[in-house]
Amino acid sequence: MVNEKPESPDSPQSRETLIVMKIGGNIIDDQEKLSSFLKDFASLNSHNRGAKILVHGGGKLASKLAEQLNIPQQIIEGRRITDEETLKVVTMVYAGYINKNIVAQLQAHNCNSVGLTGADGNLIQSHKRSHPTIDYGFVGDVDTINIELFRNLIQQNITIVVAPITHDKKGKLLNTNADTIAQEIAKELSDLYEVILVYSFEKKGVLENAEDDNTVIKQLDRELYKDLKQRGAIFAGMIPKLDNAFIALNNGVKKVIIGNAENINQLIKGEAGTTIIK
Amino acid sequence: MVNEKPESPDSPQSRETLIVMKIGGNIIDDQEKLSSFLKDFASLNSHNRGAKILVHGGGKLASKLAEQLNIPQQIIEGRRITDEETLKVVTMVYAGYINKNIVAQLQAHNCNSVGLTGADGNLIQSHKRSHPTIDYGFVGDVDTINIELFRNLIQQNITIVVAPITHDKKGKLLNTNADTIAQEIAKELSDLYEVILVYSFEKKGVLENAEDDNTVIKQLDRELYKDLKQRGAIFAGMIPKLDNAFIALNNGVKKVIIGNAENINQLIKGEAGTTIIK
Repeated sequence: MVNEKPESPDSPQSRETLIVMKIGGNIIDDQEKLSSFLKDFASLNSHNRGAKILVHGGGKLASKLAEQLNIPQQIIEGRRITDEETLKVVTMVYAGYINKNIVAQLQAHNCNSVGLTGADGNLIQSHKRSHPTIDYGFVGDVDTINIELFRNLIQQNITIVVAPITHDKKGKLLNTNADTIAQEIAKELSDLYEVILVYSFEKKGVLENAEDDNTVIKQLDRELYKDLKQRGAIFAGMIPKLDNAFIALNNGVKKVIIGNAENINQLIKGEAGTTIIK
Repeated sequence: MVNEKPESPDSPQSRETLIVMKIGGNIIDDQEKLSSFLKDFASLNSHNRGAKILVHGGGKLASKLAEQLNIPQQIIEGRRITDEETLKVVTMVYAGYINKNIVAQLQAHNCNSVGLTGADGNLIQSHKRSHPTIDYGFVGDVDTINIELFRNLIQQNITIVVAPITHDKKGKLLNTNADTIAQEIAKELSDLYEVILVYSFEKKGVLENAEDDNTVIKQLDRELYKDLKQRGAIFAGMIPKLDNAFIALNNGVKKVIIGNAENINQLIKGEAGTTIIK
């Protein structure tokens, strides 16, 4: 038998497609919409056994639990100030309740998945954010991604479900933005795969007019983005997503798509949502 | 180069030692004791790179959270009746808070670990318990263990940290006794490894006199167990542990040790605690 040389990861012909999907916003809070999304996600790409990773946010469930436990919450520019008690809440809600329920549902749809935080297998190492004027508390900014563990699980045909909790390798868990995690994973894995990064949520895409769902922009490049931002047309919550999208594209990610989680098959095909181009 | 035949898992000489350790009881509730235990556990066996798995219980943290959330708890014969709201609590506490904090601490001690529930990678599949008179709610009894995933992670030198939550493969998470999970894992993996099952907790071992910590029984066989039970000398909480121990020994597990989590190095060497023999 001839000893076959493994296909080079650098050869574009041999590169497998990898979908890195972020699911967030109201979908997480809505059992019915989440179930329907997970059913679609489970069967996504299964015809060609393409690999996929799901990164989820926390929705409003963490805020709700914090309220029930009388832990005051403070959100500055969309970022949750994470004191010790809030860290406990987000760890329970993101890494426990949401992550494990997603995994159990995917398993029911025969999508073999493993739910992980950044601490597991040292998947995502981060450092506590230091900011000149704001103390974000236990919020982590990503330093490194463990590509080997991702690759190993993907090779076993396992879908990785990532909760937005990382660690500093010194024993501390840190709350980390899920949009950024998705971007960092997409970027780092683009050395090995043809990565499509999808931000899916309750909106239909990037809108020309934030008030009108029928004004989805089909293709958005940096020029148009700059122009729309100057005109104040971009919905505030969309700006970090778009910033992440351009970082990803500038670092080897093949395609970034933003759109509605209720129709991810169309999103992937480019038949719906906004495709971000360089 | 000669193509070396992989060592047969059936050959006793080649079998690697695997420690399956259950940590439970008051240790989980006590940050200081837990940290000290995890430091010991991280370095355990590292001289011969022996594999290890940690199964943790939930301590009293789940009961405390349930109380804060005004969810009434009912414990029958040491088993928590798990209604929908309680399932949410135990999923958050076991799979989220406890599991991820254990993993982060092990990472800090350079013990590369991954925290999983039975849903992750279909690691432990179970069915909802049916009982003629008691409705336990969402409590699962173990059906199957995914040996392949355990083996794969062990081969990567990853320590698996198991939270006592399983799933039914139909989308439902189920609350499952951690002692039993440890026994089932030990049993199933004894086809591949020389398994040592350790139940570690706040007590020094199986006591001849439950009131006196200085009456640790060094070796306990089925005869003596039967005798002690008849005399009513065995502490009630110990009975399920011992039943699990004998099931494990009858199904290929090499050794079962019960003892204090504060001195696991001595436990493993048989210098402390109770060793259960057939």
